Amino acid sequence: MDALGGLFDFRLDPHSDVSLTRQLGDQLRDAIAAGTLASGRRLPSSRALALHLNVSRNTVSAAIEQLAMEGYLDVSRGRRPAVAPLSSPSLIGFEPEMPASRALGAISQWAQRIGTSEWPFMEDGRPKPFAPCVADAREFPHAIWGRCLRAAARSAPVRRSAACNRPELQRALLQHLVQYRGVSADAQQVFLLPTAQAAIALVARVVLDPGDIAWVESPGYAGARVAFEAAGAAVRGVELDQCGLAFETSIDTPRLIFVTPAHQHPTGLLMPAPRRRALLQFATRVGAYVIEDDYDSEFHYEGRPVAALQGSDRAGNVFYVGTFSKSLHADIRAGYVVVPKRFVEIFAKAQRHTGQIVSMTLQDALADFIGEGHYAAHIRKMTRLYHLRRDRLCHALMAMGLDLTVSMPDGGMQVAAQLGARYDDIDVCCRLAQAGLTARPLSRHYFTEARASGLFLGFAAWNESEIDAGVAILARVMREMEARK
Amino acid sequence: MDALGGLFDFRLDPHSDVSLTRQLGDQLRDAIAAGTLASGRRLPSSRALALHLNVSRNTVSAAIEQLAMEGYLDVSRGRRPAVAPLSSPSLIGFEPEMPASRALGAISQWAQRIGTSEWPFMEDGRPKPFAPCVADAREFPHAIWGRCLRAAARSAPVRRSAACNRPELQRALLQHLVQYRGVSADAQQVFLLPTAQAAIALVARVVLDPGDIAWVESPGYAGARVAFEAAGAAVRGVELDQCGLAFETSIDTPRLIFVTPAHQHPTGLLMPAPRRRALLQFATRVGAYVIEDDYDSEFHYEGRPVAALQGSDRAGNVFYVGTFSKSLHADIRAGYVVVPKRFVEIFAKAQRHTGQIVSMTLQDALADFIGEGHYAAHIRKMTRLYHLRRDRLCHALMAMGLDLTVSMPDGGMQVAAQLGARYDDIDVCCRLAQAGLTARPLSRHYFTEARASGLFLGFAAWNESEIDAGVAILARVMREMEARK
Repeated sequence: MDALGGLFDFRLDPHSDVSLTRQLGDQLRDAIAAGTLASGRRLPSSRALALHLNVSRNTVSAAIEQLAMEGYLDVSRGRRPAVAPLSSPSLIGFEPEMPASRALGAISQWAQRIGTSEWPFMEDGRPKPFAPCVADAREFPHAIWGRCLRAAARSAPVRRSAACNRPELQRALLQHLVQYRGVSADAQQVFLLPTAQAAIALVARVVLDPGDIAWVESPGYAGARVAFEAAGAAVRGVELDQCGLAFETSIDTPRLIFVTPAHQHPTGLLMPAPRRRALLQFATRVGAYVIEDDYDSEFHYEGRPVAALQGSDRAGNVFYVGTFSKSLHADIRAGYVVVPKRFVEIFAKAQRHTGQIVSMTLQDALADFIGEGHYAAHIRKMTRLYHLRRDRLCHALMAMGLDLTVSMPDGGMQVAAQLGARYDDIDVCCRLAQAGLTARPLSRHYFTEARASGLFLGFAAWNESEIDAGVAILARVMREMEARK
Repeated sequence: MDALGGLFDFRLDPHSDVSLTRQLGDQLRDAIAAGTLASGRRLPSSRALALHLNVSRNTVSAAIEQLAMEGYLDVSRGRRPAVAPLSSPSLIGFEPEMPASRALGAISQWAQRIGTSEWPFMEDGRPKPFAPCVADAREFPHAIWGRCLRAAARSAPVRRSAACNRPELQRALLQHLVQYRGVSADAQQVFLLPTAQAAIALVARVVLDPGDIAWVESPGYAGARVAFEAAGAAVRGVELDQCGLAFETSIDTPRLIFVTPAHQHPTGLLMPAPRRRALLQFATRVGAYVIEDDYDSEFHYEGRPVAALQGSDRAGNVFYVGTFSKSLHADIRAGYVVVPKRFVEIFAKAQRHTGQIVSMTLQDALADFIGEGHYAAHIRKMTRLYHLRRDRLCHALMAMGLDLTVSMPDGGMQVAAQLGARYDDIDVCCRLAQAGLTARPLSRHYFTEARASGLFLGFAAWNESEIDAGVAILARVMREMEARK
């Protein structure tokens, strides 16, 4: 035993959960990696090592085989295993004269840019009143949804198609969009993507080259801005008038235009028909594409919802984007885009190349959920509920006599309330956060110089007593701020 | 009635499923859009129109209200509604002198490039023998998985975190990766993404600027190549020697290196320890990042699986990518990446900006599935099964006496078999496809000039009798081809 020296004094614990072979292999590997067992050093025979360590010879042989396979030991028939050279033969002396292309730890220009981006607004924990763009998950039929998921999981073995977008869901979703949103398309134009944000980002990459101009509404949805910037676009904020996006000749010709015609984000304004027509004509004339983000159009309270812009697009310029995260609830996480017919093939490739595929189980469950009528029923139920909540929030805010101008939106899940000039909205939102409320500063939604100060408040996810309690807190906070001035 | 003229002879069907209000609204809208009712034209009073159409006045008023909201009609108190001007006031006479930035219908350079890409290999229907990279969904415990999904759906209302990556899944997955793959990380370094492809593409975008050099193994995984090209990289194929990626000074210094050290894709080779060390040293010296795609490392048949490269990365250069689509089955669709610690914050932003989020329900179900031991149990079961299938396929191929050199891989789900010089592998694969078999031509996996001809065959998804039947067809096809020469 002494003949082996201290080099092989491995400590093996027969009572450990880890097998003796693995213990020995791990310690041998460590010794080689640390240089304790130098390159070229021969191991004792497996019999000698087994005796030394008081384990079976099989244990030693198995450990040596494993390390040989990993390249730590050289074994050849009839000779004792030797520690392999640190570099493999073909790379001995390999010291390329390559300069570092950049400091290690450097990241792409895009990554550097998003590092300083304020979007998205991040909060810990569950959303608090009055976080915008949040559906009420408590009212969702979780049991029915769970049944759909389980059924989808069980039907997996008999699925016939390997398509990334399940035909059953394409058809069911399209039928819903045709009936409720006036969308006009074939089922194959419907793509399921992980989120609406992914859809916007992928459209941008398919139509924009670096340096191309993209227009976003100002105030508008910052998610579109960052998605366009990710595609290398130069993003221009375009101001709104009372009809929505107001084209201006002073702004560079766009290649892509992002609009929210059903309920403008964040103002809630409906884009009227003449402006819609003008927008489509303009897009066709300058060779621009349009992304119509129909994000919470399912919920409309005054009259019938206005049909989607996509339905009147004759030139095939409009990409229609939607999401189940608003119509159902946030944890569902699936978005979709209806692409113009001539984009079907290229979009299928873009989806694969970037790996933006939604679980087939989830897609099947959604197809069932829609097909069995649960989707339309849930939207009907939530429209009634959100209608009451919109009224409750707006009336409660108005009744408080605060320096806050509330214009009631025709639909959607949030309201934009303008603050009096003496209030800084970022300041107000900070103080509300300290008081346990969430509100987004309207000024942060502008991509142009002119900025209104106000609060962007969601009403959908909270019941009436939560709304009342939230408004009371909001009023207290604003009055305290006023008293301090 | 005649006073109204033919202009308002709308046809309303009281027996239709569509409400009278909606029928009237739709026809009015069509008439305005078509110009039949010209801009400025006043409508009859709602009483006169109701009489004319033999419907209630409420029906007419509701339709008019809807069209007013949509901007088709101007209504002001005390006057009859008039058809709104085609352009809204602020845009009358708006004819910007903007040139089209590009022909309408143009797409980005990236989209043009992927339009001609051969990747991915697309097939209709369910995979056929011997499609590579396919797990056997028939052996998956669908009932248990369905229960996990249903439980996750039901627990949605009580979720507390709004994180994109569920902490429960980060912890459960990491524990598995530490135990089985030797990964070394904190749970927050684990990101869940829609697919492994999405993970590779996102890493590329975070570390690569357009024009940066990225290395891929040749032969190698074409998905990595297209993901890097999507980030604007210049991709270089690097040849393999018997130890894997063989660095060459003749190739431009890389910024990112893609490797499959556990079972090289497609050759199945294990990268031995000295080459792993050399690779990590090289990456650190030249300032390159490494993506380790550990795509089917769960299944290893000879000795213990070799620990992941990521576990020996001291410099924090390695992004470790994996997927549930191989370890479970393809329809699950969730990938993951373990990022170096200093990338946690920037990756969280990159994930949000590109909208690459996996359904929370799916994440919770996966966390349960792993936590309850079903994941490890399934991998153990499939390792035994795939081991038998690898042996069956390799031995059956060897026994056929074909001009085909099979080297049995130590693990994974597929085997690369080299064809004799007289066979063109694309030709063979075409004929196999006609005979109902899937095989990938090895020559298509090369990104360098030198190309071997061979078949890349998956054995995982088919039972032994399917393998036997497939091999019999393959032998027949090859013999027929030989007879024709």
